Amino acid sequence: MALVVQKYGGSSVADAEKIKNVARRIAATKEKGNQVVVVVSAMGDTTDDLIKVAYQISGKPDSRELDVLLSTGEIVSSTLLAMALHSIGYPAISLTGAQAGIKTDATYSQARILKVEARRVVKELEQGNIVIVAGFQGITEEMDVTTLGRGGSDTTAVALAASLGAKICERYTDVEGIYTADPRVVPEAQRLAEISYEEMLELASYGSKVIHPRAVELGELYNIPILVASSFTENQGTLIHREVSMEVRNKVRSIAHDMDVAKIMVVGVPDRPGIAAAIFEALAAANVSVDTIVQNASIDNITDLTFTVAQSQLDKAMAVVEPIARSIGARQCISDARLGKVSIIGTGMQNTPGFAARMFGALSEQGINIQLITTSEIRITCIIEESQVKDAVRVLHRAFRLDTEI
Amino acid sequence: MALVVQKYGGSSVADAEKIKNVARRIAATKEKGNQVVVVVSAMGDTTDDLIKVAYQISGKPDSRELDVLLSTGEIVSSTLLAMALHSIGYPAISLTGAQAGIKTDATYSQARILKVEARRVVKELEQGNIVIVAGFQGITEEMDVTTLGRGGSDTTAVALAASLGAKICERYTDVEGIYTADPRVVPEAQRLAEISYEEMLELASYGSKVIHPRAVELGELYNIPILVASSFTENQGTLIHREVSMEVRNKVRSIAHDMDVAKIMVVGVPDRPGIAAAIFEALAAANVSVDTIVQNASIDNITDLTFTVAQSQLDKAMAVVEPIARSIGARQCISDARLGKVSIIGTGMQNTPGFAARMFGALSEQGINIQLITTSEIRITCIIEESQVKDAVRVLHRAFRLDTEI
Repeated sequence: MALVVQKYGGSSVADAEKIKNVARRIAATKEKGNQVVVVVSAMGDTTDDLIKVAYQISGKPDSRELDVLLSTGEIVSSTLLAMALHSIGYPAISLTGAQAGIKTDATYSQARILKVEARRVVKELEQGNIVIVAGFQGITEEMDVTTLGRGGSDTTAVALAASLGAKICERYTDVEGIYTADPRVVPEAQRLAEISYEEMLELASYGSKVIHPRAVELGELYNIPILVASSFTENQGTLIHREVSMEVRNKVRSIAHDMDVAKIMVVGVPDRPGIAAAIFEALAAANVSVDTIVQNASIDNITDLTFTVAQSQLDKAMAVVEPIARSIGARQCISDARLGKVSIIGTGMQNTPGFAARMFGALSEQGINIQLITTSEIRITCIIEESQVKDAVRVLHRAFRLDTEI
Repeated sequence: MALVVQKYGGSSVADAEKIKNVARRIAATKEKGNQVVVVVSAMGDTTDDLIKVAYQISGKPDSRELDVLLSTGEIVSSTLLAMALHSIGYPAISLTGAQAGIKTDATYSQARILKVEARRVVKELEQGNIVIVAGFQGITEEMDVTTLGRGGSDTTAVALAASLGAKICERYTDVEGIYTADPRVVPEAQRLAEISYEEMLELASYGSKVIHPRAVELGELYNIPILVASSFTENQGTLIHREVSMEVRNKVRSIAHDMDVAKIMVVGVPDRPGIAAAIFEALAAANVSVDTIVQNASIDNITDLTFTVAQSQLDKAMAVVEPIARSIGARQCISDARLGKVSIIGTGMQNTPGFAARMFGALSEQGINIQLITTSEIRITCIIEESQVKDAVRVLHRAFRLDTEI
């Protein structure tokens, strides 16, 4: 008997009818002879609503208490889903993160899973139960409740799949799968039948919100295939796994984009050891996440240092960087708050020349100016004006023939 | 340093403002040099709302799952209250029933507390924290969540007070205390400054909804004084304890009433051993709670057996009793669905004649017919027409001068 782990997002369990629908899907999986473990998110906007109440009470809610509060959202949906399965005749039991043995460190609001002690899950499966686990939460050594931060329920699902030896982790939301570009931007975008972990990681890190990179990383580490599909249709979705078919024709798999980029340029920096460290250590201490970093080759021992942050973090970052820039004798700090990035991603591009040239050419023909370029082995990213990002995605989707060849 | 356990009901923590108000009251208790443990109910109608969702999903929600679901209501209010204390500068921590060591049996939805393992509570108190415990819930040996049924959070509070050796358990709701009668029925009803456990038990069992008998029993057993007061005023409330002042002038302390009584009379029952057992064992098996039972002395080995149940259970009770009555050769079964009861309660009545006569006389003068009478050492109860109950309460309140002497 194979074991399947399924994960349903908040939109899939947003109300009583949707929960019943999910129960029927789970039942169908069980009927195929599988053991089933299900991980659920909180219903619809529950988490946001709980956060709102917390902030009505305290301007700065304690993170331990906030975690306890938020964990209730997933507990509610897990019990309701168990009841829905009972009502159509399937034995099921809900378990909290603690009961399911999701052991984490004590970093409230963004705890990391240390291990999964799945004895109770295994026992309930052996007794014939469908096991519904509250996602997004775990428990510390001291029995305090934690939450896993962004992508938390996906991570719960993949971690359970890994520790139980599941054949697959199926992840259902209101999104049909991974596309050649965001279908809201490119209506002709096509769903990919499969994608490699590496490609998905680049895609997720460079703008796709469909699945959090953290869950994909864990999937790759334990070689758990992850299916991304919709709970509202019977479409097959996209399988994230190791061995993508050799027959994939288009070496570019997908265009990722991100509208939330701001740039800081420290101009005229003396090129001495320790300067970059001084700046980025200070940003890290201020809890600013830096994304792309570019430093040009120096001329006369003077160089320019450019990096990007999320737009919402620009002011905080400037407040950190400007005094440092002055103290090291840099000429000035320039910022631009309205940028975005567009990336082409595909393992097939590796060692194949010409993709960069084709990308830059297509953008240039459209009159889109490239401000920064960064690449990995399977990705090329251009930072451009925010207002031109959607055009750029459409242009590249056509230029790489993603509307016809996938 | 004295330890105070406070319990706040759902109406006291119904929204963010009320939670902040409760936090200020707790802080004031802490400022008096006490250690404070607080037990909270779920906010306002949370529990009812959760039950509603459960029934949208399943006609018969599983009791284990329902308990997990309902337990989230108290967890939410406990974390919010901890946040409210932080925001006014008091160290506080919320604990679930499980974390607070409330160990119960596995009777879902009406679990009994087996023991309280309060190590974590003690540790947090020693670290200077105000400890907020989610009421109404516990955990089984197998780490499954249970709820304690009606009066659950009150019971949590008294059990914690007993196991921690608290000097008092203060219980706050939107009710100012225990009155000489329900103030909604008798506007002149007066608040009692104190009442004994036994009187309170009779009052609670015979109609007062202010506090559940279960918590009072536990208070009596461990000799924990229980203060019943409002979280919305500074009135002193009513103290339930063992030694009520000898100076209490009025031997009748309070008039209790209950509008929810139905009567079943099995007429012409052969007076043989085992007949009553057959009827009441069948009712118990059908989960019907029987209240008052009266059997008259038999004439010619034929007797009548009368008992009362809640009005909502009458149909179920009749369905159980009628076939048995036929099989034992009883003449007929008669039921009356619209009765109520009125009781006078007071330890001082013990061994003092005349109270019954005065009660019956007052009711008779008002034209109120008494259908059944039952008594304990400190209580006399008359079962009468439901429509006459409120009149009866007012008449008795006057007859025993409770508007002037207490």
